Amino acid sequence: MERTTTYKPTILIVNDDGITAPGLANLIEAVADLGEIIVVAPDSPQSGMGHAVTIGNTLRLVKVNLFEEMGIEAYQCSGTPVDCVKMAQDILLHRKPTICLSGINHGSNASINVIYSGTMSAAMEAAIDGIPAAGFSLQDFRWDADFSIAKKVVRTVTQQMLGSHLPENFLVNVNIPKVSEADFKGIKVCRQASAQWKENFEKRVDPRGNDYYWMTGKFVNNDMGADTDLENLKQGYASVVPVKFDLTDEVVGSWIRRNWEVEG
Amino acid sequence: MERTTTYKPTILIVNDDGITAPGLANLIEAVADLGEIIVVAPDSPQSGMGHAVTIGNTLRLVKVNLFEEMGIEAYQCSGTPVDCVKMAQDILLHRKPTICLSGINHGSNASINVIYSGTMSAAMEAAIDGIPAAGFSLQDFRWDADFSIAKKVVRTVTQQMLGSHLPENFLVNVNIPKVSEADFKGIKVCRQASAQWKENFEKRVDPRGNDYYWMTGKFVNNDMGADTDLENLKQGYASVVPVKFDLTDEVVGSWIRRNWEVEG
Repeated sequence: MERTTTYKPTILIVNDDGITAPGLANLIEAVADLGEIIVVAPDSPQSGMGHAVTIGNTLRLVKVNLFEEMGIEAYQCSGTPVDCVKMAQDILLHRKPTICLSGINHGSNASINVIYSGTMSAAMEAAIDGIPAAGFSLQDFRWDADFSIAKKVVRTVTQQMLGSHLPENFLVNVNIPKVSEADFKGIKVCRQASAQWKENFEKRVDPRGNDYYWMTGKFVNNDMGADTDLENLKQGYASVVPVKFDLTDEVVGSWIRRNWEVEG
Repeated sequence: MERTTTYKPTILIVNDDGITAPGLANLIEAVADLGEIIVVAPDSPQSGMGHAVTIGNTLRLVKVNLFEEMGIEAYQCSGTPVDCVKMAQDILLHRKPTICLSGINHGSNASINVIYSGTMSAAMEAAIDGIPAAGFSLQDFRWDADFSIAKKVVRTVTQQMLGSHLPENFLVNVNIPKVSEADFKGIKVCRQASAQWKENFEKRVDPRGNDYYWMTGKFVNNDMGADTDLENLKQGYASVVPVKFDLTDEVVGSWIRRNWEVEG
């Protein structure tokens, strides 16, 4: 499986938990020898930023020496995960990297979380730009989570990506279960489970007597399919969901053409 | 086409340009008589926020009297467009509205802009929650844009939505061209054009001698299909693109199953 050619791919590494997140360091360690690595990550945590971009504000990009011992260039960016991908290409690389890896996120991005996830939005931005991309997330929110299985999954997926002639618009959402080595089953291609967040807002009163709210919520999965990411994660598999950014819904499109007085 | 029943649907109206945007007022005017209206919009412009949610910060929700003359309740929210949809349901309505309308955005959200758009993310959040939703955008960035054709399109689409038994996960991205009445051709169902933004960053130096950047970019469309939203907008049609939030890419999924050593 190891590449034996002298060709050195360029691997752009980004995340949404910020430049100091252990998940980022673990992603770098997992693939450091597979290519020329460049790291651009937000200077503060950006979870839940979705596909936000910074259009009305200035952006900063500052070199940091966090991974200097490994001989790896790294930059912190004042913007969103998507900004990181855009700035890396235009300001630092002046070209497209071979692939883009995002993560490893502290917490699941399976199912509908793909929509809210900064990790996956950064990977999607790369894919939109024509760069094969993968986002990695571990089902463990803790800062000191055990990334050992996740690192193996990252390495396997990255090697497969670098060793394949990938199809156009290649983008995968990879989630790694929180299981022991003994209970880890392998890697499986799945579909996005149809689940959602049910939000509640907790009302509080500030010291000046004004109301404010905290968002809380619970995750509800009514999709009992055996082929979903959520089900396979539960079984002990790392899930690989290929992700589209052409969002056209042909089924609803046909329905509208049949039922509404519109052209099409 | 007008409804004659006594049933009064609840219409949740949101946007991403903020509570004071003329596009919001125009959307409200276009549908004010079609149901019980409730407005929740950001207290400041939120363009380019994508599907961002506020998870690490507090949220405010304050009643405003901007549309009181029309007998319409309105609230400004300190969060993102997606937060507005969530707070409306949990704090104000305590139930799902009949439909959710988002916009009218000042500027196009056709093609790949659906991914970056706060307008469309708010509509998508509603659809994820099981509320049929539409996002409306006018191809004119100006604050004093002419919304007269846009209002007609909004009204027609809203009446069709309220008058139909809609399919599950109903979500449409409606864009309105900047044309005169004479050149407006009608409403057409389209697919999302495969286009993208090519970003450049303009480097400047702040008064303290540090570098900073402004994002600039140009929109590049290489999709010459006659059935795309961009092409039909150019022809003078309002484009209706049905939008999915199950992002699973079955084509890439099949490719991975054939080519990689993974299960699936």
